[in-house]
Amino acid sequence: MIVVMNHNAAQIDIDRILQKLTDAGFQIHLSQGVERTIIGAIGDKTRLSDHALEAMPGVEKVVPILQPYKLASRAYRNSPTVVKVGDLEIGGDTIQVMAGPCAVESRDQLLKSAMLVREAGATMLRGGAFKPRTSPYSFQGLEEKGLELLAEARELTGLRIVTEVMDASTIELVAKYADILQIGTRNMQNFFLLREVARSGKPVLLKRGSSSTIEEWLLAAEYILAEGNHNVILCERGVRTFESYTRNTLDLTAVPVVKYLSHLPVIVDPSHAIGKWRFVEPMARAAIAAGADGLLIEVHPNPAEALCDGPQSLTPENFQALMQNIGAIAEVTGRRIGKIK
Amino acid sequence: MIVVMNHNAAQIDIDRILQKLTDAGFQIHLSQGVERTIIGAIGDKTRLSDHALEAMPGVEKVVPILQPYKLASRAYRNSPTVVKVGDLEIGGDTIQVMAGPCAVESRDQLLKSAMLVREAGATMLRGGAFKPRTSPYSFQGLEEKGLELLAEARELTGLRIVTEVMDASTIELVAKYADILQIGTRNMQNFFLLREVARSGKPVLLKRGSSSTIEEWLLAAEYILAEGNHNVILCERGVRTFESYTRNTLDLTAVPVVKYLSHLPVIVDPSHAIGKWRFVEPMARAAIAAGADGLLIEVHPNPAEALCDGPQSLTPENFQALMQNIGAIAEVTGRRIGKIK
Amino acid sequence: MIVVMNHNAAQIDIDRILQKLTDAGFQIHLSQGVERTIIGAIGDKTRLSDHALEAMPGVEKVVPILQPYKLASRAYRNSPTVVKVGDLEIGGDTIQVMAGPCAVESRDQLLKSAMLVREAGATMLRGGAFKPRTSPYSFQGLEEKGLELLAEARELTGLRIVTEVMDASTIELVAKYADILQIGTRNMQNFFLLREVARSGKPVLLKRGSSSTIEEWLLAAEYILAEGNHNVILCERGVRTFESYTRNTLDLTAVPVVKYLSHLPVIVDPSHAIGKWRFVEPMARAAIAAGADGLLIEVHPNPAEALCDGPQSLTPENFQALMQNIGAIAEVTGRRIGKIK
Amino acid sequence: MIVVMNHNAAQIDIDRILQKLTDAGFQIHLSQGVERTIIGAIGDKTRLSDHALEAMPGVEKVVPILQPYKLASRAYRNSPTVVKVGDLEIGGDTIQVMAGPCAVESRDQLLKSAMLVREAGATMLRGGAFKPRTSPYSFQGLEEKGLELLAEARELTGLRIVTEVMDASTIELVAKYADILQIGTRNMQNFFLLREVARSGKPVLLKRGSSSTIEEWLLAAEYILAEGNHNVILCERGVRTFESYTRNTLDLTAVPVVKYLSHLPVIVDPSHAIGKWRFVEPMARAAIAAGADGLLIEVHPNPAEALCDGPQSLTPENFQALMQNIGAIAEVTGRRIGKIK
Repeated sequence: MIVVMNHNAAQIDIDRILQKLTDAGFQIHLSQGVERTIIGAIGDKTRLSDHALEAMPGVEKVVPILQPYKLASRAYRNSPTVVKVGDLEIGGDTIQVMAGPCAVESRDQLLKSAMLVREAGATMLRGGAFKPRTSPYSFQGLEEKGLELLAEARELTGLRIVTEVMDASTIELVAKYADILQIGTRNMQNFFLLREVARSGKPVLLKRGSSSTIEEWLLAAEYILAEGNHNVILCERGVRTFESYTRNTLDLTAVPVVKYLSHLPVIVDPSHAIGKWRFVEPMARAAIAAGADGLLIEVHPNPAEALCDGPQSLTPENFQALMQNIGAIAEVTGRRIGKIK
Repeated sequence: MIVVMNHNAAQIDIDRILQKLTDAGFQIHLSQGVERTIIGAIGDKTRLSDHALEAMPGVEKVVPILQPYKLASRAYRNSPTVVKVGDLEIGGDTIQVMAGPCAVESRDQLLKSAMLVREAGATMLRGGAFKPRTSPYSFQGLEEKGLELLAEARELTGLRIVTEVMDASTIELVAKYADILQIGTRNMQNFFLLREVARSGKPVLLKRGSSSTIEEWLLAAEYILAEGNHNVILCERGVRTFESYTRNTLDLTAVPVVKYLSHLPVIVDPSHAIGKWRFVEPMARAAIAAGADGLLIEVHPNPAEALCDGPQSLTPENFQALMQNIGAIAEVTGRRIGKIK
Repeated sequence: MIVVMNHNAAQIDIDRILQKLTDAGFQIHLSQGVERTIIGAIGDKTRLSDHALEAMPGVEKVVPILQPYKLASRAYRNSPTVVKVGDLEIGGDTIQVMAGPCAVESRDQLLKSAMLVREAGATMLRGGAFKPRTSPYSFQGLEEKGLELLAEARELTGLRIVTEVMDASTIELVAKYADILQIGTRNMQNFFLLREVARSGKPVLLKRGSSSTIEEWLLAAEYILAEGNHNVILCERGVRTFESYTRNTLDLTAVPVVKYLSHLPVIVDPSHAIGKWRFVEPMARAAIAAGADGLLIEVHPNPAEALCDGPQSLTPENFQALMQNIGAIAEVTGRRIGKIK
Repeated sequence: MIVVMNHNAAQIDIDRILQKLTDAGFQIHLSQGVERTIIGAIGDKTRLSDHALEAMPGVEKVVPILQPYKLASRAYRNSPTVVKVGDLEIGGDTIQVMAGPCAVESRDQLLKSAMLVREAGATMLRGGAFKPRTSPYSFQGLEEKGLELLAEARELTGLRIVTEVMDASTIELVAKYADILQIGTRNMQNFFLLREVARSGKPVLLKRGSSSTIEEWLLAAEYILAEGNHNVILCERGVRTFESYTRNTLDLTAVPVVKYLSHLPVIVDPSHAIGKWRFVEPMARAAIAAGADGLLIEVHPNPAEALCDGPQSLTPENFQALMQNIGAIAEVTGRRIGKIK
């Protein structure tokens, strides 16, 4: 790291920093210019308490040099991680489309959804059994009953199941039914949950916090990786900005950035990011063109009757059109849409 | 609510909306202008599935009229809620100052902190036993040992204890030791945790999510109130913006806004919002001038040795100065700083 | 518009609103519910002073129903506007690529840039002669000399010229040389400049303000349209968020949104949005997949020697690769890349 | 500056950087660690083209050490600048309150406003003659007629005049009438206008751009200072965030931050930041408690009839209350409210 001293830092302040760094085993490079003293320090950062130097007298700022995540970085592993979900791969040459309703509402709604997304070419079924809702007066999910219906839909269609786990106390239950455990945007920094979900051994789909930087997102992934679970799939779902016409601002640039900084696969959820079905299809195309490894799309047999997020759900017809259009884009970028064998 | 139709909505689309609203028992006011059809609907919104109308053909937007929270609103309760913590009151004429280190690090550090903040005039001691950390490689807290030390500090000083609960599985443990259970900014929308913490019956200090609107914050409070726990203290702690010199942007306007919209007390945490100790004291003064019911301030006997958030911690001397300055501001606004009897 | 009264608004407050609306010639629909009084008003909004109703006693909020822009809306003109620049079209079936260096630095640099972007398939040359720079100590542009070089490059290559106009006093000068006048992101709400530039009659490329909503952007376009100049090309170039790895967050969803709300063509500038050349190519692909009518790309014969924005400039080789890749994407979306005849 | 190389940077890349720095006269400190090579460089940054190093192969990032502004910094001038406007001082012990309507609407409205703000204790009159309006269909100001009325109000009351200049072509005109020239938030980075307004020699009130960092704001001030005009008054007026209940988020922390980084005085405009009159008074108090050198407050004899920004304007009665309350706060912070002699 680099320690930049105030322009009027006293020699005693500088000496105190040097002592502290030396004590912690750092190798030091000192530059004393006319305007500033700059201290370069090379060593094991975990041997200093966090931000300790910044709190010392005479210090203007401390500039970290290395990325704070390790296991998630390209420096740790240069080739892309491919997460296997049964015989499906996320992060390789094929693009997986996960689709389905926001929430599991009934047997009829879910099985109908499953069949139609299967037919249109999706390989995985999404659907919430536990729903985080901004208002306590909104529908909160069917819970275990919803999980059972998801499992039934898998039986029927062969689709793999992605569903959200909201609290550590229900991980075991959800893991019994689901193929991929989803961590929602509001829980991206629920570090207790991250650790517990990692220990389930299941693949984890980690949504980006709606006000999280890419670095924080990779640090959240690091919590899972650090528990020995390497099956992490990142999911961009929009960040919060001043723009109010769309629900959030989909940050598609995060796709190539994540692929540059990390070896983990990254998929895109345009439905939640945008909040309006009309713009989901063009942004799904754009996501594939930007290099995404998959999509998470809300589809409902009858959006106007959906108990949750109807305005952003595609009708079966619109979803079919989407699948055709992204297939063409995938092809020109040298990839193909995954299929259930 | 008001339903605004597209300028080219078909009559059949309009009829379908009217039917749906009528079926759900709404009273309807129809305005068919030259450019638009506008439908006003009065009734019980919970009888319609969320956003159902927005997903229907021909609808441009649906404008809610009433605030989505009820128990947290001034319409539900017009006089300010005063939360009692032992014989101390939050939300009345007195201002409570909660102070202490970011994390409980050791017996010596905590007791020293407790005595010095007590002496300077604080009435409550803050200190994390469970710490949510962005990086898995940072200090994560002393856990139960930390809670025991907090209880010991209370014995010694009479200070009330505020500490964070990070997961539903530890609520019972934390509640055994703490006087106020804190929900951290990252958990503001951890709805499962909100419900469980409410059921403990303890006063809850609910930090604003760093990218949450005031409305979402009051809806999070609603989750707690809806469980019958009315002892909710809101805490403004900065929101995320593009400004990078400070850690977050302290939104002090939220203080009078919350007091206008809600009856709940609201305190301010300038330390976390700003991240630099130098600006904590003027912003503490500003918070009191804006009408805050209390402050949450990080103080450490030796910030440069803090295991967490040293750069934003005040030294004992600076904290004493802060207490004197806010006392003078409180007085001219007709309030006084709370004291331990 | 809809006027929502406070839940405890007095009858006299309601009467005063009704009087004011009636006096201004509005047609009124009154809904007096148990909880609220809602007043719907249909008429010519320009006959009321701005926000006048919101300032009146008893009013909780005023909800506008119609979009505030008219000439820029689909309601005014439903078919897409095609802006003609010589024999090139922006907004039709062909996609125009504008490329070149951030700033005109020298005759050699500019002519070399022009030839290489021409060869790779661009149809327009970008290059700043007047440069808005955050610091007064940065290179500020060659001014008229730069304009002359741009004209020389057009002679040599047939490329059309896009260059920024920074102040009303230089419009005449810039218009003498340029084919398209660019309004930079910092000037999107420089309303005086918008009006003056409109009066030049030249096509205007209007960059989105880096913290502007789509609605404000369309209102800025409205300033130009209202002067009778219908040749407006919108350009998305990223918005400001908390993410700091990229310079701004490219809001590609703005492309289909603008096309839904407005008839104006919209192009995308990934170079400025991102600030790192490495991510320009995938985001250029994504922009085309999302439906953009063109691209604005920074290319420099030698980015490391660029006087401005080197880190985001593509080398000639990388730009050639970009052109090939977007061609393939354009084809599968039923469009083609424009060519100089 | 510090140049951090990629972890796999080749020796030739490193050599090329060293050569470039040496050629530009920099003094070099090289640290070659196991993981990274870090190059410290001390010298005159203006001898390198902007960002030139970042564009060179093998470079991960370039970290600037010194602040990019000079004349605006505490390093250049340590004691606070006091701007004199006639016999009034901004930046010293007294706090100046500028008040008046958003726009000059009529002789009656302006003179009435002037007399009432004078009586309540303001020392300066604000009022727009040229108005930047988001919509071309809003009232755009009385222009020169408005300036004449402002001058008449000064004659009548002794209040100094603050008014906005929107374009370089009207600087001479506005400067003929005004005591302080205001640069509006949308023009903070209109660098052409900044230079021209500086040359007028008049004191300049520089509003912060609504999406500008503090560093960019000080760089904008630097444009004015670099022209030899040292009479710059900074004005915080809120920044854009996702919060939608208030118009912008007032960043009061900017007050002590600016005072720490710079010697320039800083005032606060809560009216525009918040957009709702109800919260102006508490935030005015908070601004003074935070150390602001003055306030800019919208007051209108009849807010409901205002042609502009009525919802945020105080009535005469509310403004009187505000003046009394801030006086008490000023006193306990060792300052006093300025008075016309």
